[in-house]
Amino acid sequence: LPQHFSFVAGDRGNWRITNMQAIRGDGLDDAASIDVVTGLDPAAPAATWTLRGFASNVRYATRPEVTMLRAVQAPLAREEARLAALIPIKKTAAWWDMAQDERRRMFEETSRHTAIGLEYLPAVARQLLHSRDLGEPFDFLTWFEFAPEHARAFDDLLRRLRATPEWNFVDRETEIRLTRA
Amino acid sequence: LPQHFSFVAGDRGNWRITNMQAIRGDGLDDAASIDVVTGLDPAAPAATWTLRGFASNVRYATRPEVTMLRAVQAPLAREEARLAALIPIKKTAAWWDMAQDERRRMFEETSRHTAIGLEYLPAVARQLLHSRDLGEPFDFLTWFEFAPEHARAFDDLLRRLRATPEWNFVDRETEIRLTRA
Repeated sequence: LPQHFSFVAGDRGNWRITNMQAIRGDGLDDAASIDVVTGLDPAAPAATWTLRGFASNVRYATRPEVTMLRAVQAPLAREEARLAALIPIKKTAAWWDMAQDERRRMFEETSRHTAIGLEYLPAVARQLLHSRDLGEPFDFLTWFEFAPEHARAFDDLLRRLRATPEWNFVDRETEIRLTRA
Repeated sequence: LPQHFSFVAGDRGNWRITNMQAIRGDGLDDAASIDVVTGLDPAAPAATWTLRGFASNVRYATRPEVTMLRAVQAPLAREEARLAALIPIKKTAAWWDMAQDERRRMFEETSRHTAIGLEYLPAVARQLLHSRDLGEPFDFLTWFEFAPEHARAFDDLLRRLRATPEWNFVDRETEIRLTRA
């Protein structure tokens, strides 16, 4: 399975950008499309910007949570899932200074991040990529895919997550909405 | 602080190899020295091999453990710490398939990894680097520095860690011993 992904923004790509919004902190430059490609070194000399990330092992979920997630989660590239969102997020130094048990407590026991996400499965397919360890401008890139009839549920998911205590540790967040090209 | 490191084995380098031993699985090709450099793309056309890794946030330690570690750990590059060891390790698929709570339990409650390591501080300075997410041949590169009078204690630390249940999840391990060039 490919582990490394690059999101190349520019004039062309397999996903067309329909809206970009800086939720917190600096936004990203406008572009027409994003090309989602495997690897960390795409040949893209004309890119407006490129964001990179890697899929990795589970960082917070317990065995019961992993079992629940795997039972209901949907794969990417479903025929009907013509809409997508790319949400790059950077967390604060205070987040990264926390020990593992402190981050886990804030993530789940306090904010119910996994529990909230589970309510929107399998409608919203999700792939989390890690960027911070690559020295990238964001810490995480989350990619979501869903059918047009689930767009309102997806808005609801974002609204609920952004209202959690975990989001007090978000320094920068941009929301990019896309449609399959 | 630099986050990315490369270990370039070859004819020259800031550390001279005194011994290399394949502990489990395939070893690495013999070389005279290792140059420890920052960054992931060293200009090293004549390298025998290069291993890359990044420093990252705490993955298992709780707040009390982090506090204890920070209170007693030693920095790298101490004048008297003329000996070093580089120990690349790859863990099994079964390790990476575990949920976070299962890996934590095996790492600490079962194997006492942090507790054992604490007994050898501040004599043995240690820097853990992550490699798996870069698609490298090993998952972790751990770098140790110590004075010659603590070499026997370091051997003891390795022997105790390798006897833990956590080491049943080690697929490949090579031990490289070095002296400051």
